Amino acid sequence: MTRPSNDTFLRALFREPAAHIPVWLMRQAGRYLPEYRALRAHAGDFMALCKNPALASEIALQPLARYALDAAIVFSDILTIPDAMGLGLSFVENEGPKFEHPLRNERQIRRLFVPDPFDRLRYVTDAVSATRKALNGAVPLIGFAGSPYTLACYMIEGSRSNDFRFVKTMMYSRPDLMRRILEIVTEAVLRSLNAQIESGAQVVMIFDSWGGNLATAAFQEFSLFYMRQIIAGLIKKKEGERIPSIIFAKGGGMWLEAIASTGCEALGLDWMTDIGEARRRVGREVALQGNLDPGVLFAPPENIAAETGKVIDAYGPDATGFIFNLGHGISQFTPPEHVAALIRTVHEHRLTKGKNLVSGY
Amino acid sequence: MTRPSNDTFLRALFREPAAHIPVWLMRQAGRYLPEYRALRAHAGDFMALCKNPALASEIALQPLARYALDAAIVFSDILTIPDAMGLGLSFVENEGPKFEHPLRNERQIRRLFVPDPFDRLRYVTDAVSATRKALNGAVPLIGFAGSPYTLACYMIEGSRSNDFRFVKTMMYSRPDLMRRILEIVTEAVLRSLNAQIESGAQVVMIFDSWGGNLATAAFQEFSLFYMRQIIAGLIKKKEGERIPSIIFAKGGGMWLEAIASTGCEALGLDWMTDIGEARRRVGREVALQGNLDPGVLFAPPENIAAETGKVIDAYGPDATGFIFNLGHGISQFTPPEHVAALIRTVHEHRLTKGKNLVSGY
Repeated sequence: MTRPSNDTFLRALFREPAAHIPVWLMRQAGRYLPEYRALRAHAGDFMALCKNPALASEIALQPLARYALDAAIVFSDILTIPDAMGLGLSFVENEGPKFEHPLRNERQIRRLFVPDPFDRLRYVTDAVSATRKALNGAVPLIGFAGSPYTLACYMIEGSRSNDFRFVKTMMYSRPDLMRRILEIVTEAVLRSLNAQIESGAQVVMIFDSWGGNLATAAFQEFSLFYMRQIIAGLIKKKEGERIPSIIFAKGGGMWLEAIASTGCEALGLDWMTDIGEARRRVGREVALQGNLDPGVLFAPPENIAAETGKVIDAYGPDATGFIFNLGHGISQFTPPEHVAALIRTVHEHRLTKGKNLVSGY
Repeated sequence: MTRPSNDTFLRALFREPAAHIPVWLMRQAGRYLPEYRALRAHAGDFMALCKNPALASEIALQPLARYALDAAIVFSDILTIPDAMGLGLSFVENEGPKFEHPLRNERQIRRLFVPDPFDRLRYVTDAVSATRKALNGAVPLIGFAGSPYTLACYMIEGSRSNDFRFVKTMMYSRPDLMRRILEIVTEAVLRSLNAQIESGAQVVMIFDSWGGNLATAAFQEFSLFYMRQIIAGLIKKKEGERIPSIIFAKGGGMWLEAIASTGCEALGLDWMTDIGEARRRVGREVALQGNLDPGVLFAPPENIAAETGKVIDAYGPDATGFIFNLGHGISQFTPPEHVAALIRTVHEHRLTKGKNLVSGY
């Protein structure tokens, strides 16, 4: 009853037949768009944009004005949660995020608290409601958060890392401290996602950017275990509509069956994973979202169309449960007109089986 | 007849029973060792060490003086080949390798040539023969090279990259140019590895550091295809002894069957891959080398022993065809005494099946 007029994304998430293959792009609102850069030059730094619900909403809608995208995503950042926990987030140009107070001793960890999503993270829920309102029922709105392990990585390292030296040292020396951090972050992520649902998010997505850096057993213990708790604790229905969840674990291609077992509706696939093979492995229990190499978008439009077609074909002849996306966030160096070629190719793809069509079920 | 007195490493590579599980560590001669840092402070920069066969040999033997390692590896770098191709290699402290002339246009690519391994790379073959001589038959000596795709990544990007923007642009826009580079580098790598074998290397290893950044089909086409040619072209026997080869593809855990099909004797596994699962997937056709998370070495010795034991147990009760190693190069921040705990644990592991023992076959 509150379904958006274009519900192809929701249908794919629920493995229902849809009129066309839905498509959206991770980081679709961002630096590759000149209108984003113009707004940012005028309005200040990245976090200033996130913290202004009207601007965040405007930015979230920018790519939808250009392209026939089938979903919108809240304009925000996974590091808003650790920032609200008092770690002091800043973004250094060309260096990425920095925390002023990385977690390096037990005292800091004992003092960690779960921030109230409607207080310290009010700007996120306000951005959600403003964006939902601005969308006016056109396409579904995705809320999101980082996985507890990924957030813990940033909180412990204090910035991006090549070797995760401080994380690994803590994990293998003091797993009790690592678990303490993860438990608190899990509660914070769960509350944030549920607050985003309360505020109008119709789908939620968890980004596990760094879990793929773990040994298989450690991934299960330090990342998947906590994502499973989050999926279990999510609000499942709002105003009569089910709220689906997506887990994207970069580098998690070897663990798809385990991730699917959390009960999420869809797996986000990175571009290294063969989507046809993924389909065979996880069967029809979950939808799959992905997974074109973002680097393909540097090529000319005809090559983009060809590579896009290969991903669609690899998924298989029955496109039920398939959401087209990139295998990672879109690069800031992507020419915007190249994105148009991708969207067109996905939408013009002829669904070969009658059961893919709405009329066919 | 020219087998070293400790041939456990060769036995494991050939899936023959051995008296104990052999162990060596990627980057075992390097910055975590104070004796290496002392020698380097005295002798100059990294490439100066590589280019001095006497020093390279001394460095290769440093870890063997400390630990009961079952193999030695030539002290060199995968980027010696592109350097010999005229790209102008330098190492910038804390930034890694830089090429003065990255490949960015067709003219540069058309001019690429295969360097003579006994001329422009003479210092590598001289380091091999000096090290082999210094080892005096104690343990086998490993020669190595980067995979063509990995070398091409550095040659095109000019340095380490997060997004491989120039590589992906070329690959998806001008695959003909990409293939041209890869063909020439393949020939250069093959000649270098065979020259290392002629000079005394008893095992050769190919490091594919960046192939794991490719989509599955692109990995087959742009990385594995060329590694297969190299394996096929390698000298197979020298002085009556077979020369085994190892392929290490970081992030290649999803493609083990394909990598094993090249005909290499062993797969090097990164730490994300479950080694028990890998064993089940590739069967007994190849040996497996790996795969402790190098981050475990930051933990106290008792935790290192426990995690090391888990990897051994995961391989399975029959340790035939198993070479213990890390899942990546050892970190410069590793305390040397922690390495001792690892080696001890591997060597003291009781082989539970009679058929693992030399006496049992």
